[in-house]
Amino acid sequence: MDRNTIIAAARGDAAVDLLLTGARIVNVFSGRIQSGSIAIKDGYVIGFGDYPAKETLDLGGRYVAPGFIDAHVHIESSMVSVTEFARAVAPCGTTTVIADPHEIANVLGAAGIDYMLRSADGQPMDCLFALPSCVPATAMETAGARLEAADLAPFFEHPRVVALAEMMNYPGVIFTDPAVMAKLDLARRQHRAMDGHAPGLSGPQLCAYAAAGITSDHECTRAEEALEKLELGIRIMVREGTCARNLDALFPVIDAHTWPNMMWCTDDRHPHDILTEGHVDAVIRRAVTKGLDPVTAIRMATINPAAHFGIFDAGAIAPGRKANLVVFSNLTDIRAERVFFMGRRVAEGGRLLPTVTRPTPVRVPRAMHLDPAGLDFSIPLEGSRLRVIRAIADQVVTRCEIMPAAERDGMAVSDPGRDLVKLAVVDRHTGKAHMGKGFVTGLGLNRGAIASSVAHDSHNIIVAGVSDAEMRAAVTAVVAMDGGFGAVMGERVLAQLPLPVAGLMSDQPLETVRDQMDCMIDAAQALGASLSDPFMTLGFLALPVIPDLKLTDQGLVDVTRFEIVPLFV
Amino acid sequence: MDRNTIIAAARGDAAVDLLLTGARIVNVFSGRIQSGSIAIKDGYVIGFGDYPAKETLDLGGRYVAPGFIDAHVHIESSMVSVTEFARAVAPCGTTTVIADPHEIANVLGAAGIDYMLRSADGQPMDCLFALPSCVPATAMETAGARLEAADLAPFFEHPRVVALAEMMNYPGVIFTDPAVMAKLDLARRQHRAMDGHAPGLSGPQLCAYAAAGITSDHECTRAEEALEKLELGIRIMVREGTCARNLDALFPVIDAHTWPNMMWCTDDRHPHDILTEGHVDAVIRRAVTKGLDPVTAIRMATINPAAHFGIFDAGAIAPGRKANLVVFSNLTDIRAERVFFMGRRVAEGGRLLPTVTRPTPVRVPRAMHLDPAGLDFSIPLEGSRLRVIRAIADQVVTRCEIMPAAERDGMAVSDPGRDLVKLAVVDRHTGKAHMGKGFVTGLGLNRGAIASSVAHDSHNIIVAGVSDAEMRAAVTAVVAMDGGFGAVMGERVLAQLPLPVAGLMSDQPLETVRDQMDCMIDAAQALGASLSDPFMTLGFLALPVIPDLKLTDQGLVDVTRFEIVPLFV
Repeated sequence: MDRNTIIAAARGDAAVDLLLTGARIVNVFSGRIQSGSIAIKDGYVIGFGDYPAKETLDLGGRYVAPGFIDAHVHIESSMVSVTEFARAVAPCGTTTVIADPHEIANVLGAAGIDYMLRSADGQPMDCLFALPSCVPATAMETAGARLEAADLAPFFEHPRVVALAEMMNYPGVIFTDPAVMAKLDLARRQHRAMDGHAPGLSGPQLCAYAAAGITSDHECTRAEEALEKLELGIRIMVREGTCARNLDALFPVIDAHTWPNMMWCTDDRHPHDILTEGHVDAVIRRAVTKGLDPVTAIRMATINPAAHFGIFDAGAIAPGRKANLVVFSNLTDIRAERVFFMGRRVAEGGRLLPTVTRPTPVRVPRAMHLDPAGLDFSIPLEGSRLRVIRAIADQVVTRCEIMPAAERDGMAVSDPGRDLVKLAVVDRHTGKAHMGKGFVTGLGLNRGAIASSVAHDSHNIIVAGVSDAEMRAAVTAVVAMDGGFGAVMGERVLAQLPLPVAGLMSDQPLETVRDQMDCMIDAAQALGASLSDPFMTLGFLALPVIPDLKLTDQGLVDVTRFEIVPLFV
Repeated sequence: MDRNTIIAAARGDAAVDLLLTGARIVNVFSGRIQSGSIAIKDGYVIGFGDYPAKETLDLGGRYVAPGFIDAHVHIESSMVSVTEFARAVAPCGTTTVIADPHEIANVLGAAGIDYMLRSADGQPMDCLFALPSCVPATAMETAGARLEAADLAPFFEHPRVVALAEMMNYPGVIFTDPAVMAKLDLARRQHRAMDGHAPGLSGPQLCAYAAAGITSDHECTRAEEALEKLELGIRIMVREGTCARNLDALFPVIDAHTWPNMMWCTDDRHPHDILTEGHVDAVIRRAVTKGLDPVTAIRMATINPAAHFGIFDAGAIAPGRKANLVVFSNLTDIRAERVFFMGRRVAEGGRLLPTVTRPTPVRVPRAMHLDPAGLDFSIPLEGSRLRVIRAIADQVVTRCEIMPAAERDGMAVSDPGRDLVKLAVVDRHTGKAHMGKGFVTGLGLNRGAIASSVAHDSHNIIVAGVSDAEMRAAVTAVVAMDGGFGAVMGERVLAQLPLPVAGLMSDQPLETVRDQMDCMIDAAQALGASLSDPFMTLGFLALPVIPDLKLTDQGLVDVTRFEIVPLFV
């Protein structure tokens, strides 16, 4: 931005580019709705009133709010690239996201963050970043990278970086792990927000977390939890994602006194939900339906996150701020009829305009270092009883179940009749193909194998299958795509979804991925899988920070004891 | 602060220093008042509840609020040093001020800022600073210094510096003066607040000012003015100073939607007002008396300015924030019964505790470069009619009046019978004793002379007198004190008030200065001065940014035309 040009236009010395007349402007500073005109120059709002303009557009009395801000999102969860994500959410009125590239950083480290930063250029919305604070999440898995404070430091100079992202390692904070404290100190020195992640933390431990300077939390699932955190100075991001929806539970906390310390976020939202429900706009609509004042709901989506992250050029319709605008007709059912990003029309009627072109794709580093040919999925029988992971529908937690082993030729094998299916996690980062093996129940698989390179948080390849050959075939399919989902029966690949961007994201539009995803689920269900989204459930079986029993490439992890445990009891 | 120690105490691993039990705690995040205990370690709040403590103090159900923050103050206006100012306002519950050392910077430049920064150490409150943005205020006077962006830059590294102070040169902003823009850019790069000062600015010019990134204004005198600014994203500091009191006018703007963008400040508060009314507490009391919710009034004095300035370690009673606390009994008449600063009792019953000692005085650079011996106050008669400054009681504006000259021996002289009194401003900065001469009416002086080294904004020596000899004697008295106020009749000094700190501040306690000030006013009134505070009025006769006619060491300034004009019409 050339600030002098903006100021000159504001004082009235030059014609503005665009004057939006007949607007009912949502003022997020006063909470009032004002009738008037919005003058735009070089992509920025410069003032209100009768400025001379090159182009005038009459909004016919429609409402105009600042573009919505998603305070915390993992773009990787949408399974598409930054480009396709932006093209999907901009029509919903989202003009800024604070993205935490935690997943790709676990795969590619600093190169992943760099890839995301470069991918953010030229999009129809602002993709800002919070730097992932916990890569890897634990030492009990082989991640693609390790990021210490010194690795993060250079990124704080980047204009798109506004915060340190969710500090999931809350024990590290509470017990002042030096590497964790170094990351917090780094953010503090930069006057940057330090976002938190502390589900259920309470009492003295929460006080310790707050005393460390943590400024937000998006993991609250109960009203009392949110109020306790808020009253310690931790701002509350109310999350409405695909797997975790907290608006209903936290709604009672939002009142005339607390709203300045609250905002919305989506965290993880899958393609289907974005396409059918929407994005931040969907959260606003739900909140308003539940009885929240619409202007307050808008403030929680605009100026509140802007102020939280020290973003002074967005989050409000005001001179010197980007002309990111959402036009709509109904305050009680806010649906973006037109979206402006930096003064440019980018979407109408919920659809991206054809004038919004894709920027040149950024080259993504290779993130698949695995030769599946020699993989050995066999498990010699070393006991009669197994620690089995029980998958639970629509949950990321699991249970540990003790089941008798099934034996064939001295090996422990799957027994689909008892819903006992072999599970393996194969390291795709080091080239050494470290493999952890175990069993899962609850997936419902009774034939074939399913595999995925989306396996939180290290995103090794996770595969479940009734035979070793089919497991190898599924992994081979995933490796051949440089990552993705695969479903195999016998030697045949029933369905596959390529995720060539770090094995996490597609380069196709969100609609395509949604359709491919539907095919994947159909294929998995054809193999007997009984869950609504078996690949999501599969992906979380590898996450060793969520109880009770998980599998990484290093083996079975008892999360309650935070240690590797033997498969055989 | 050793953060690890604070965190360890918060998680309960070490006894805290002090536990305040039986407290009704004003939570500025939720707006609620909670009954409970406050645990303090190493000067910081670490948590609530039953922490093991070395010392316990029962507050007997009294209220506890965070220490109050003055969002914008010129300590120089209190006429005492930082030490004496802190000792005066801490008992009122003020534990943080954002001081703009504009006056001393006009006298001593960077050395003045440095002096103030070093003086802030070891005080019973936090003196933080906004860097003066307009030194000198104009080119039509000889100031002691010129501060460009490059001069200010090093100070932004100082932990006590939190903002760029009031940008009074709003024409410079609106018309993008490069030196002004450089200062704004500097603050922006540091993610720092850029405070404003734009009385009456409106419409496109205000939009231009806002577009430059100005984040606050404390000069609003009308509700519509404040609302217009607030709705452009400029936070409103409601000022209650000695000369300018805006609470009554701005009160209607404070509502459930606007309060998050509003805060209190005192700007300029003279000794008498601090001692009789109080400080920020007085503003809170007035607002509550007018009907504002007390907790909202407290939030405007605590978390709002803290958030505005990015101060994360004060402004709330919460883990990791300084234990700056105000204890009081009555929510509708908030009077500090006890004040804690960094966990230490500093005041009780409105009095500083004797345990609070003065830090070692900081050496102040010499700020008087003037030999009064050779000063020639005579004005050769060059016409029959004079441009005379009309002083107006309790106002900083003046009028220009045309009056017939009085003549003696070919010289224009005072004529007390017509309330026509000679006025001079003598440069005390360069050693060259530049002198501007003119006449004033409205002071009422009919004998002797009064002089002052407090003459806004360059703080040269201003003197009004009926004879040249008495004017010289008054200036000589001021110079002999290294600055101050003097009242002379004949050869006798009737009264004097030494202000040895840069000719602006006393090193004596506020009560002493208040008493000395009373003597000065008595003496001036004995000389015929009719105004309630003739020295204050005198001091503003030199301020060439306030209309209509002013006198600097370079001559008479027609402020409406912003140029030097001849004395004789």
